[in-house]
Amino acid sequence: MKKKVGIVGYGGMGQWHATHIRGGKYLNTLEFRESDVAEMAGVYDIDPEKRKKAEADGFKAYDSLEALLAVPDIDIIVVATPNDFHEPIAIAALNAGKNVISEKPVTISCESLERMIDAANRNGKIFSVHQNRRFDNYFVGMKKVCDEGAIGDIISLESRVHGDHGIPGDWRKTVEHGGGMVYDWGVHMLDQQLWMLGYDVDRVYAHLDYLIGHPVDDGCFIDIFLKSGKFLHVEICTYNFIPMPLMYMRGRTGTAIINGWGQDIKVTRCLEWDDQDDILPVKVAAGLSKTMAPRAGRTMEQLTIPLPKTDEHDYYRNFCDAIDGKATQLVTHDQMRVVMKVIMAAFESARTNTVVQF
Amino acid sequence: MKKKVGIVGYGGMGQWHATHIRGGKYLNTLEFRESDVAEMAGVYDIDPEKRKKAEADGFKAYDSLEALLAVPDIDIIVVATPNDFHEPIAIAALNAGKNVISEKPVTISCESLERMIDAANRNGKIFSVHQNRRFDNYFVGMKKVCDEGAIGDIISLESRVHGDHGIPGDWRKTVEHGGGMVYDWGVHMLDQQLWMLGYDVDRVYAHLDYLIGHPVDDGCFIDIFLKSGKFLHVEICTYNFIPMPLMYMRGRTGTAIINGWGQDIKVTRCLEWDDQDDILPVKVAAGLSKTMAPRAGRTMEQLTIPLPKTDEHDYYRNFCDAIDGKATQLVTHDQMRVVMKVIMAAFESARTNTVVQF
Repeated sequence: MKKKVGIVGYGGMGQWHATHIRGGKYLNTLEFRESDVAEMAGVYDIDPEKRKKAEADGFKAYDSLEALLAVPDIDIIVVATPNDFHEPIAIAALNAGKNVISEKPVTISCESLERMIDAANRNGKIFSVHQNRRFDNYFVGMKKVCDEGAIGDIISLESRVHGDHGIPGDWRKTVEHGGGMVYDWGVHMLDQQLWMLGYDVDRVYAHLDYLIGHPVDDGCFIDIFLKSGKFLHVEICTYNFIPMPLMYMRGRTGTAIINGWGQDIKVTRCLEWDDQDDILPVKVAAGLSKTMAPRAGRTMEQLTIPLPKTDEHDYYRNFCDAIDGKATQLVTHDQMRVVMKVIMAAFESARTNTVVQF
Repeated sequence: MKKKVGIVGYGGMGQWHATHIRGGKYLNTLEFRESDVAEMAGVYDIDPEKRKKAEADGFKAYDSLEALLAVPDIDIIVVATPNDFHEPIAIAALNAGKNVISEKPVTISCESLERMIDAANRNGKIFSVHQNRRFDNYFVGMKKVCDEGAIGDIISLESRVHGDHGIPGDWRKTVEHGGGMVYDWGVHMLDQQLWMLGYDVDRVYAHLDYLIGHPVDDGCFIDIFLKSGKFLHVEICTYNFIPMPLMYMRGRTGTAIINGWGQDIKVTRCLEWDDQDDILPVKVAAGLSKTMAPRAGRTMEQLTIPLPKTDEHDYYRNFCDAIDGKATQLVTHDQMRVVMKVIMAAFESARTNTVVQF
């Protein structure tokens, strides 16, 4: 039987969840199949206009959070409000005996996250964060390259998301609601990278951009060194009129790159480290370089790997299985803790211009 | 009348200078025109085999440094030895009344550089470092984009040089001779970036790679924040089987990129910041993004700027003019000081995992 879902917050992401579950067209852009594991039970939004919109869209709208939480057959509450409201709503829902999917970032401090986890444990309910970008096809493809050892042990992974018109809309420009690019995109990219390469964070160095004049960061880079020696770089900018490649991963026996969304993965593998007895320098502009001279072709292999098909319903499938005790939740509490701690370390690093030891 | 040049060290760069001055073919790769401002007077190398090679190449080889420095009509001594020998040879040459061009890095500590500058001042001679990559066509092209304001005030500049077969050859793999990528390529890229965007360094953060097992760094990145707020990133790797773009520059009204050596400069200019009343989100893999949605085309302009022609003899021309009092030396002592101090800060940052305030 499908799990019944109540959604709190009927803005962009609340509408996304509702359409994703029922199936249909979202913002004239995405076409969703109906979920095979979840169905819509209702919506609550603090704004009467949004409740009206929910009704117009064919969903039952409740007049209060309490009313929504009091519906006995709702299994899952999705929290899709501004980030600073995730904690009180999630805890209220957990205390009402509901399982909770919080939109990302799960909340805006480590202490707040601990209170949410406590509430989940106390009530014996499943509580997780909607890290749906673990199913992004480009990320899944890169993770496969990594997991299958196609380029050997990973040395470094760089993820870049570059936009060119600042932060659009609403509360995402405000500090009190947890706006800014670290919370918006950074949390996805950190979650992806740490999930792929390990949670053994040693230290964090970050810089935040304030180019447009909002009180929140409109761009950032976050450098993470893992205890394993692996290096992670997450970069989000909203002031780049030409984007740099989306993902770049170096391994001991090769390099993989994705130049942009929807593009194939390019892999170059090194078949043999020693390739020339006597490397001839190449002319590079005003000078010569032996170091940057090209390899002999015979020691290299170039592959093009198409992006895998991914299923956008897998997140809910796992969550519902976790409720039924048939699976471990995909995004665990410990993983959420590390991502939140890295975000706090990034803010501290950028504020103090220091490297933050974990 | 052409200045007479004596070269100390007849390895790769010593041979480069000699061929560059006389004209002719270098390592079957480069064809040099004869210099219009300098001519070869002789060579000294500590290795008798290299002296024999110099003679075979048609240059007079001297049996000792003293003998070379004693030739009265030599105007310029070029120091093209391993990096740890630059200081004693340069000081001996300056004390012998010669002007000195040191290969880069000029030396391997700030104190050493001060002793060299003292010797130059004491003897009233011109002393500079061979930062010939200020004439690299890709760099000259990017500097022109910057200087002409084509993309407005510069926000950040990133330079990457990515090779794929480690450090080739000789002493460049040893600590005592000042090997490693920071000294080899880093010094060029730092010199270029600081010359373009200013020497007002506020702080330095760096990481060194030791992937291949040499005692020296086989790759690095160096992040510099200027007091002006500009951000500089220098990255050299010798373990990247796919290179990332060579130069990437963000300005207030546009972005410029060079994808690789010999490739044109691509510029995208933003004609108008506000471009859409209501930005429609784009599908990016498993999710949607308003932030990363494309701009309306009408607010953008794309340009392709061919690389400029540069003249490889301009470095020597300036140096000879400086000797004659007709020009200021292109690479000044103060500029050399800042580059050397940044390099020391980068080593310290990487060793201590801290941000080094300047």
